[in-house]
Amino acid sequence: MLDFANRLETLRARMEEHKIGLMFLTPGANLFYLTGIPHRDHYRTDHNAYGDWAVGGYIGLNEGVILTAPRMGGEYFVSQVEGKPWFEPVRIIDESEDPLEVMRQVVSRFDLKGRRVAIEDHAWAETVQALRLLLPETEFMMASKLIAPMRMIKSEAELDLMRKAGQICDGALQEALARLQLGVTAWDIENEIDYQLGMMGADFNSFPTNVLFTNPLKDPGLSLRKAERRLEPGDAITFDFGCIYKGYASDFGRTAFAGEPPAEYLRMHSLVLEAQQAAMHAMKADQITAAQANAIARSVIEKGGYGPEFSHRLGHGIGVTVHEPPWLDVVDHTILRAGMTFTVEPSIRIPNGYHNRVEDVVLVTPEGGVSLYGTSRELYRVG
Amino acid sequence: MLDFANRLETLRARMEEHKIGLMFLTPGANLFYLTGIPHRDHYRTDHNAYGDWAVGGYIGLNEGVILTAPRMGGEYFVSQVEGKPWFEPVRIIDESEDPLEVMRQVVSRFDLKGRRVAIEDHAWAETVQALRLLLPETEFMMASKLIAPMRMIKSEAELDLMRKAGQICDGALQEALARLQLGVTAWDIENEIDYQLGMMGADFNSFPTNVLFTNPLKDPGLSLRKAERRLEPGDAITFDFGCIYKGYASDFGRTAFAGEPPAEYLRMHSLVLEAQQAAMHAMKADQITAAQANAIARSVIEKGGYGPEFSHRLGHGIGVTVHEPPWLDVVDHTILRAGMTFTVEPSIRIPNGYHNRVEDVVLVTPEGGVSLYGTSRELYRVG
Repeated sequence: MLDFANRLETLRARMEEHKIGLMFLTPGANLFYLTGIPHRDHYRTDHNAYGDWAVGGYIGLNEGVILTAPRMGGEYFVSQVEGKPWFEPVRIIDESEDPLEVMRQVVSRFDLKGRRVAIEDHAWAETVQALRLLLPETEFMMASKLIAPMRMIKSEAELDLMRKAGQICDGALQEALARLQLGVTAWDIENEIDYQLGMMGADFNSFPTNVLFTNPLKDPGLSLRKAERRLEPGDAITFDFGCIYKGYASDFGRTAFAGEPPAEYLRMHSLVLEAQQAAMHAMKADQITAAQANAIARSVIEKGGYGPEFSHRLGHGIGVTVHEPPWLDVVDHTILRAGMTFTVEPSIRIPNGYHNRVEDVVLVTPEGGVSLYGTSRELYRVG
Repeated sequence: MLDFANRLETLRARMEEHKIGLMFLTPGANLFYLTGIPHRDHYRTDHNAYGDWAVGGYIGLNEGVILTAPRMGGEYFVSQVEGKPWFEPVRIIDESEDPLEVMRQVVSRFDLKGRRVAIEDHAWAETVQALRLLLPETEFMMASKLIAPMRMIKSEAELDLMRKAGQICDGALQEALARLQLGVTAWDIENEIDYQLGMMGADFNSFPTNVLFTNPLKDPGLSLRKAERRLEPGDAITFDFGCIYKGYASDFGRTAFAGEPPAEYLRMHSLVLEAQQAAMHAMKADQITAAQANAIARSVIEKGGYGPEFSHRLGHGIGVTVHEPPWLDVVDHTILRAGMTFTVEPSIRIPNGYHNRVEDVVLVTPEGGVSLYGTSRELYRVG
């Protein structure tokens, strides 16, 4: 069971420590993490409900959490606070009201004398403008400073959900492989994966599914024509996809090949696997930084001659969002702790040439990194 | 052809008028509308690249548009500015740099003496904080004030893309109807629709697809169990979905019924159609406000005895985003103009009872509203 009451208690102790009297969170991953309101799939372009810029959770030091919601669609929030005693009744914003006045009423409920306000880092500029207007004397800071460290360490209940999110990916991969015959397009396979993720119980995708065919010999740049170019012998196929299951994310990568792979491609695959294994082996709790784990994997691929073609960081934290701190990257010197979860996803991507990538979600333990996924990392074969 | 150079020229004239020296836009619909950088599907939880809070388009009065991009993934932006002479070369933010310093360099390129800065309304709080730090004396305002009025009036080229986005929805509906047999779940049908939208050429969904089974007699509240409850005779089925095609949105609604509909359900369907027709008939350019169009449809449903069950606004503007001003709602007194496009989507939704909705995208003309979609609004029948 996810223990929201305990998380809120921890947060409030941290707020007190940082002299924060109010935290404003938009509906999303942080609000889910702290209060259990499920974060839903994004509106892909924009959503606009009356007063939506004033909508979110207002968390004080002692008061119940106040959730504001638009009238239209507000029943979702009303149904979700049921059975969650840490909430006050939802404050619905009606079209007959000025949303700024509603925000003023809500904000006035909190004692902000000598205290700061923390805002969701990704709250809208529009929302910041309104809060500054209402609280001209108040100092603002970003909410992630308090919440991100809490989210980094996963409980067993969280890991169980993340494992299940991974199993769904594995199931979708098997279905995609079954469909992966000469003549299909990458677009077809992406759609198949999305369909299977939903059918197997995912809440929604954690990011847009990416299936790439690459083949330097016949067709450079074909990644731009996903819907047209059909699978041919000699193509490499890279899969990168993930889903959300009961609020927790997966992120998953495997590689396949159509026909007989060239010897050099087999060497690329071995290098990628070796880099992943080297990093996982080294990811022992309290013994290594995020940047060091990145460097270990990178050095394997550099020695193999593909340094420039490993063009991204080794991985990223993952939990209620698919990408979250810490980062397995040169810029992040966080020490890895037991219970942290990261993607470990080395790749070799030759511009206009072959791509190869393998990606697992990995749990940091005292003995090293352990994959949450059971799927074989072999080079899958087609045709 | 979408004329981006002309749009930028119009914007800059408006910026000059409002004494704005710089507009900052995050990658998204506004940046696409003004400069042609395609807006992509959202990361469904969070995306985080190094320096991403400094990433976006910086538009001045005379300079070329400066686009900043994260190094990792930046090749997308580099490829997209090609062939667009209104851009300067992309400014990539490397992991070896402080993103705040990059932002400082970029901002220093613009003459802001005596001028204001306009920010994307949905830019992140993090980004606002950085801009305020760099420009402590500068007055900020929301970018939508300038861009939203431009986006309201659609050109023929835009309408063509919106028609095509609607045709894709129609195609997906036909496939969904073919699959809609007794025993399927609403979840299955949602997945089928998403799959078909992709297969038929949509860039991505414009919002999460919503298929609801409703049946007051046997199973109140079944909308909460989409993945389990199987279609039975006596169920109403409402469809609400849309897609993005080459940057432009559709939003589409139809209703079906499994088995023989009760007489009262047929009356509900007729009322919804009548309300839609009444509003469309009245939506003549320069002769009616958005709120008045809403009131006309509402009065039809109120007279029919279902006022409280028509629980939302009549519709919303639509274009490069699926929901945008003006709003066919009590709060919006904008006069409708030729070339504006709105969803017209009356509904009757009885809590724990039957739902019915029909939705078209409608173009305002001097003769009244004209649907962009050709699909029959009949009550589709199953089983």
